[in-house]
This record gives sequence, C-alpha cells and structure tokens, in this order.
Amino acid sequence: MSRELLFDSIVKKKSFLCVGLDTDLDKIPGHLLEFDDPIFEFNKAIINATSDLVVAYKPNTAFYEAYGPKGMESLKKTIDYIPSDIMCIADAKRADIGNTSRRYAESYFNYYKADAITVAPYMGDDSIKPFLGYDNKWVIILGLTSNPGSHDFQQLKFESGEALYERVLTTCAQYGTSDNIMFVVGATKAEYMKKIRTLLPEHFFLVPGVGAQGGDLLSVCSNAINDKVGLLINSSRSIIYASKEEDFADQARAKSLELQLQMANVLQKYDLL
Amino acid sequence: MSRELLFDSIVKKKSFLCVGLDTDLDKIPGHLLEFDDPIFEFNKAIINATSDLVVAYKPNTAFYEAYGPKGMESLKKTIDYIPSDIMCIADAKRADIGNTSRRYAESYFNYYKADAITVAPYMGDDSIKPFLGYDNKWVIILGLTSNPGSHDFQQLKFESGEALYERVLTTCAQYGTSDNIMFVVGATKAEYMKKIRTLLPEHFFLVPGVGAQGGDLLSVCSNAINDKVGLLINSSRSIIYASKEEDFADQARAKSLELQLQMANVLQKYDLL
Repeated sequence: MSRELLFDSIVKKKSFLCVGLDTDLDKIPGHLLEFDDPIFEFNKAIINATSDLVVAYKPNTAFYEAYGPKGMESLKKTIDYIPSDIMCIADAKRADIGNTSRRYAESYFNYYKADAITVAPYMGDDSIKPFLGYDNKWVIILGLTSNPGSHDFQQLKFESGEALYERVLTTCAQYGTSDNIMFVVGATKAEYMKKIRTLLPEHFFLVPGVGAQGGDLLSVCSNAINDKVGLLINSSRSIIYASKEEDFADQARAKSLELQLQMANVLQKYDLL
Repeated sequence: MSRELLFDSIVKKKSFLCVGLDTDLDKIPGHLLEFDDPIFEFNKAIINATSDLVVAYKPNTAFYEAYGPKGMESLKKTIDYIPSDIMCIADAKRADIGNTSRRYAESYFNYYKADAITVAPYMGDDSIKPFLGYDNKWVIILGLTSNPGSHDFQQLKFESGEALYERVLTTCAQYGTSDNIMFVVGATKAEYMKKIRTLLPEHFFLVPGVGAQGGDLLSVCSNAINDKVGLLINSSRSIIYASKEEDFADQARAKSLELQLQMANVLQKYDLL
C-alpha cells in the first residue's frame, strides 16, 4: 500500500486507527473454542465489526507462533481475510544478518502478504535493508517503545548528547524514505513526541500504547500530527477484549467507534479532511 | 539443558561446535526435492552425519518461516529429531513487550521444545525476562554481532565512554545468571573478545561467523576461552553447504570433523579435558 493510498484511506474513513490482533485462546469468548480455528473465527468477527472504522490491522506474530504451525495457518487466513484497502502490519520485531532478514522479508511479504513488518534496529543497516526492496511494502522500525525496559538502552545518551533512540530514528530514516519506512513511537512518551516529530517531520509513526498501555490520543496528536497525518494509532487489548461474552465484536466496534470519532474531530481540527 | 550437562557434553565429545541449520530449498541438493519435506530430510541427514561431533544445533527460524506453516512443521520435526543430549538453539532474535515475549517463550520452549532462544536487547528487561522463567532453558542475547551493520549502533559510545554493546552485555547479564543467559559475540571481532571476556568471565558466548563469515577459531579461543570453555562456536553455511551433491552429509561431516579436531586440540592445550 502506497503512502498516498494510506492517506486517502485515512481521509475517507476519518480514522487513523490500527487494531492490534493479539489473539489469545485464553482471552477470547468461550463459545468460539468449539470452532476448528477459534483464532481465525475471533479475528474474522473483529474485522467484520470494525473494518469501516480502521485503516490498519496489526496481527502480533507471537500470539500465532505460540500455537505452532496451526497458529501460523490462523495468521495466514487472518491476513487473507483483511480487506485489501486496509493495511496489514505483521508485528514481528524481526531482523538478523542480511541473508536471514531476506528470508523474513520473503515470509511476511511474499508468503503471508502483509503490507508492513515491524523490525528491531540493534543489528543496523544490513539487517533492515533486505525488507526495503519491495514495492509498496513498509518497514516499521522500533524507535522509542513504551515499555519499562525502554529505559535500559533506548534513552541512554551518547557522547554527542543524543539518546540512542534519537540516533536510531535519524540513522534508520536514511536506510529508505518516508514512503517505505515508519517508526514505532510509544504513546506513553508523549513528552518525547514533539522532539521526535521535529527530527522526522514526514514519516508515519505507529503509536502503540493508547488504551491498555495508557497513552492519550489527543496529547499524541497535538505533538506529532503532520500535514499527511503521519500517525497510525494502535489499540489492541482495549478493543478486542472489550467484552469476553458473545457480544465481543459489538463491544470491539463500540470501542473502535469511540476512538474513530475522536480521530475525526482531530482531523477536522487540523484541517486534514 | 543445564550448564553442567553442556560442559560434560563438551568434554565427552571434545567439541564446542554448534551447527547452524539455515536450510534453504534453493541450496540443498536437488535429489532431496522429491521428498515430501525436503528441509527435514536434509536436516535429518546432516544431524545423522554430525551428531557425535557437535554439542548444539541452531536452526535459524527465518529459513523455516519463509515457507509458511509447512516450514514451521519442518522446524518442529527437526527439533524433535535432535538427540536430547544435544542443545537445540532456536535462532529467532525475538523480543517484544512482556506479554508478547511470554508468547514467544511459550512457542519456542513449550511448543517447539528448544533448549535456548536468541533474543534482541533493544526493548530492555521486561522484553527479555519472560524467557528466563524456564528451568534449564537458555536465553542468548545479542551482544556484539559480526555483520557490517553492527557499527551503526552497537559500537557507538555513551557519555561514560562505554560502547552500547558493552552496556548491553553488563546490563543484560543482570537479568539472570550465567546458568540461563549466554551472549552472541561475533567472531570477526576477535580483537573485542578479550575485553568482553573480562567483562563477563563466566558466561557462555555463542560465536557465529567462523567459516562463511570469516572468523578465526584459534584467535577466538585464545581471547575468550574460560575454565568451563564458555564458548559455543557456530558454523552454518560452510558445513551444511560444503557440497551440493549427494555426498552433502559426508562433506558436512568432514567439515565438522575438521573443526572438532581443532577444538580437541584447543581443549587439551587449555587443560580442559
């Protein structure tokens, strides 16, 4: 999916919501366990209930890998089911030496046919560039994450005064362009958002942590929205597990709608519609 | 596998060789493609030909994921086939926020039943600790890698004068103990080996890059061997692709034997047998 199509989709749906499909057999409603593939049934119902309100879905590969090859079948069916005008982000946090990253890229772009994959930056350029050789596919690089462990390394400062996460953002931005690279920027660090937007005025940021991780949508937008929106706001657990009962899909829609309406207001306020 | 059992196995086999199973349908001998599961057939032949010479196998998950769920079946069969007294390292380079890393740990330790998994450190403690709650399982954390991109971030220096990779090694060592944590230390950086061994006198290092990536076994050992050996030397392509013909397993054995004999000499030289 190109940057233009993504922007068009945001304007059309008045939404920059990404729903995370962290689908867990221990958390989905019990009646689904009778199906042959409960994970896919759950995802299908969530997608059916929310597809007019979102511009991206983000299956988290760990939740599929946990069930072995059968889980990967569920992932494949899920990605196939996502409408083609909605971005599919494989949240995989991969990266390895070049010949290995090439295989991960083949897996997620050619086999599973995701539009984007999240990657970890520690191994540098040759670990990320193999993901960049695909037309209209995206690499989403970890910049600043919202988990407690982000303090261990990401926020440490180099001799230059620059923090590691800042160096990661500016160095990795040069591996490609704002047409094929996005960055993960944690929403619970809204005070850093403004600084990061200054460093990278054009890139899209995938912002997790709104919802279960406690980030605040309006604060993120006021610090980091740009003239092509430049934000995908992800919410996983607070949407897909809004209810554990048979009404789970309706409740997921209600939670998505709540966020989408806030997003429509934001887009109007910033004159982006 | 406990540290004691690993050391016993090294002494018994006079080897600290790990063979990387980066099995690629484009590189294995053509006659294997007639089998229903050529990847597993290839791995089985390699394991049969080398199991008395090695203390660990390291399937690289990317090479299995590239083929979708069927590839993951090959991975499962391969891990099941590895004799239980040989360490199985899932070379997966995973790590994510805590609840997600927990699912990766479940996948690789409970479902696939690997003894160890490689992980990336960028997201810090809560991304790695979920892998540490398993008896006799190992987490192998990226320290200093041997690829060109390792210069982008790993070797940058903080205000304290410490390089990022050094901080990663000393901080991550505190997440667990030398009984459940190892580090990836690239062999092409032999000049750094001594320094790293000083920082971490007791930990095992998984050393890739001997063979195809150009590292030198004797130089690594002279700088980093300790009184419990403390080294697993990995070789992948130079062993498993020693021949593309029907004699591939014999040639893999020959290459493994060559390294094992060098290792036996090293162990004798350092009085470790």
